[in-house]
Amino acid sequence: METLSQHHCFGGVQGFYRHSAHSIGLPMKFGVFVPPQAAHGPVPVLFYLAGLTCTEETFAIKAGAQRLAAELGLMIVTPDTSPRGTGIDAADAAWDFGHGAGFYLDATQAPWAGHFRMETWVTQELRQLVLAQFPARADRVGLFGHSMGGHGALTLALRHPGQYQSVSAFAPIAAPSQCPWGEKAFTGYLGEDRSGWAAHDATELIKAGHKAPPLLVDQGLADQFLAAELHPHLLEAACAEAGQPLTLRRHAGYDHGYYFIASFIDDHLRHHARTLLA
Amino acid sequence: METLSQHHCFGGVQGFYRHSAHSIGLPMKFGVFVPPQAAHGPVPVLFYLAGLTCTEETFAIKAGAQRLAAELGLMIVTPDTSPRGTGIDAADAAWDFGHGAGFYLDATQAPWAGHFRMETWVTQELRQLVLAQFPARADRVGLFGHSMGGHGALTLALRHPGQYQSVSAFAPIAAPSQCPWGEKAFTGYLGEDRSGWAAHDATELIKAGHKAPPLLVDQGLADQFLAAELHPHLLEAACAEAGQPLTLRRHAGYDHGYYFIASFIDDHLRHHARTLLA
Repeated sequence: METLSQHHCFGGVQGFYRHSAHSIGLPMKFGVFVPPQAAHGPVPVLFYLAGLTCTEETFAIKAGAQRLAAELGLMIVTPDTSPRGTGIDAADAAWDFGHGAGFYLDATQAPWAGHFRMETWVTQELRQLVLAQFPARADRVGLFGHSMGGHGALTLALRHPGQYQSVSAFAPIAAPSQCPWGEKAFTGYLGEDRSGWAAHDATELIKAGHKAPPLLVDQGLADQFLAAELHPHLLEAACAEAGQPLTLRRHAGYDHGYYFIASFIDDHLRHHARTLLA
Repeated sequence: METLSQHHCFGGVQGFYRHSAHSIGLPMKFGVFVPPQAAHGPVPVLFYLAGLTCTEETFAIKAGAQRLAAELGLMIVTPDTSPRGTGIDAADAAWDFGHGAGFYLDATQAPWAGHFRMETWVTQELRQLVLAQFPARADRVGLFGHSMGGHGALTLALRHPGQYQSVSAFAPIAAPSQCPWGEKAFTGYLGEDRSGWAAHDATELIKAGHKAPPLLVDQGLADQFLAAELHPHLLEAACAEAGQPLTLRRHAGYDHGYYFIASFIDDHLRHHARTLLA
C-alpha cells in the first residue's frame, strides 16, 4: 500500500492511498479518513461508494463528513468507482459505463470480466486491507453511497448478509434493471440475459427475500435523475411487501449533487453511529 | 445578472451567477449562498476571496461553510479570482500570475491594466450588485479569504476602512512585497518600482497606520508555502507594533489546503457572526 497524500483534518487525517489490487489486476486508489479517536484504539468504519464519474476524492472533498465523523469517532473509506487504465477502448466511450462506472459488481462478460470486479474488491480485498492497515473494527462496519454507489451500498449489503451492520443511501439507483443507466451497465457487464440481473438489483433482491439492516434513504425531489433513473418508489414498495425496514425521506427542492448530500450527511453518520457505536 | 445554477443546500440556496462587469470589461462569475433566514429579511453578508488557481466554486464545494452559515443566518459571496478570457497570452503562462491570480488589486501596467481590476470589482461593483440583487445588509459586511485571498481580505479591509465590519484570513500572503508570489504579481501588475507596492501589502499598510477590525488569522504549521510565501510573523510583528488587534493561531500538522480550511471554518464564521449579528 502506497500513501499518495495525507492531510490533517478536524484533528484526524484524511489520506489517499493506492495498492496493487489482485481482484482487479490493476492498482486501485481509495481514501481513508481516520478520526482522532483511532489514536486510542480501533474505531467503527464506514465504506462510502460514490456515483458515476466520481473518484476516491469526491466524497472527501465535497460532502463535509469529516467534522461529525471526527466528533463521533467514525473512520470513512472511499473507494474509487471503477478500475482505471484497463486499456479497454470502450471503457472511455461514455461517462455512465466503463471507467468511473463500475457499478459495484463483478462483470461476467468480455472484455469487462478481467478487471471490472468491484464487488470482490470492495467486499473482500479492500475491506481486508483496511482492517489490516488501519485501526478499524471488523465487527463494526457500515456501508453507504450515492446514486450508482447507493445501488452499490444496497446490493452489497443485501448480497453479503452480516458483513455490514448499518446501511444507508443518497438517491440510489434503486431498481437498476428498470432504468437506462442500469440496463446499459448490466447488459455490458452481465450480458443480455436478464435472468442474471436480479441478483444485482436492490429492489429485486428484497423481493427475493434478502434482508439488510434498517435502511435510511434520502432522495431530493428536484433530482434531475429521479423520474428516469432512480425509482425509489419501487424500493419502497418492495420493502413494504417484504417487511424490510426502510426510512425513505423525500426532500423538496434538493437535486442530485453534493450540496444535497452535504445537507443530510450528518443524519446518515448518526444513523450509522446508532448501530456502530452502540 | 444571469443565473448559472442554483442548488438547495441546508435549507438555503447555493447559487452561481455571471454578470457583465463594467470595471473588468468582461463577464465575471461569482457564487452566493443565501441562508434560509433571508426569506424573512436582509441578512449579514460575508465576502470570501479564494486563492491562486481557484474559482467562484472552490470554497462553495470544499469548505463546508454552508451548514453553519445556514444556522447563523450568514450570506456568503464567492467571487472568481481574476478576469477570464482576457486574450492576454501571458495570462495563461503560469498558475501564479494572470488568470486565476488577480491578487485583488487594480493593475496599473500594460497589458494588465485594462481588465485586471479586481479591487474595484470586489469592493464596489460586485458589492453593489449583491446588495441590490440579494437580501443582504449593507451595514453588516464581512470579508475573509485564503492565501492570495487572505492577502486580498486583509489589504482590502485596510484600504477601505468602514466598508467591512469583520475580517479574517486563512494562511494569507501576509507580506507580499517580500515573497516570490507577491514580487511576481506586483512586478507584473504594479510595475518594478517598489514604492507602489506597500499600498497593497497588509504588513506595510499596518506599519503605515492603516486600521482594520480585530483580525483572526489561522495558519497551518505543515503548510508547504509557510516558509517561503506567507510570512505571518511579519504581520504579527507589525500588528503588535501598531496596536492592531490580531488573533494569530498556529496549528501543528495542518497544510495549505481546504481540509485545513474546513477544519476551522466554523471558528471564522463565528468570529464574523460576533460582530455582524451583534
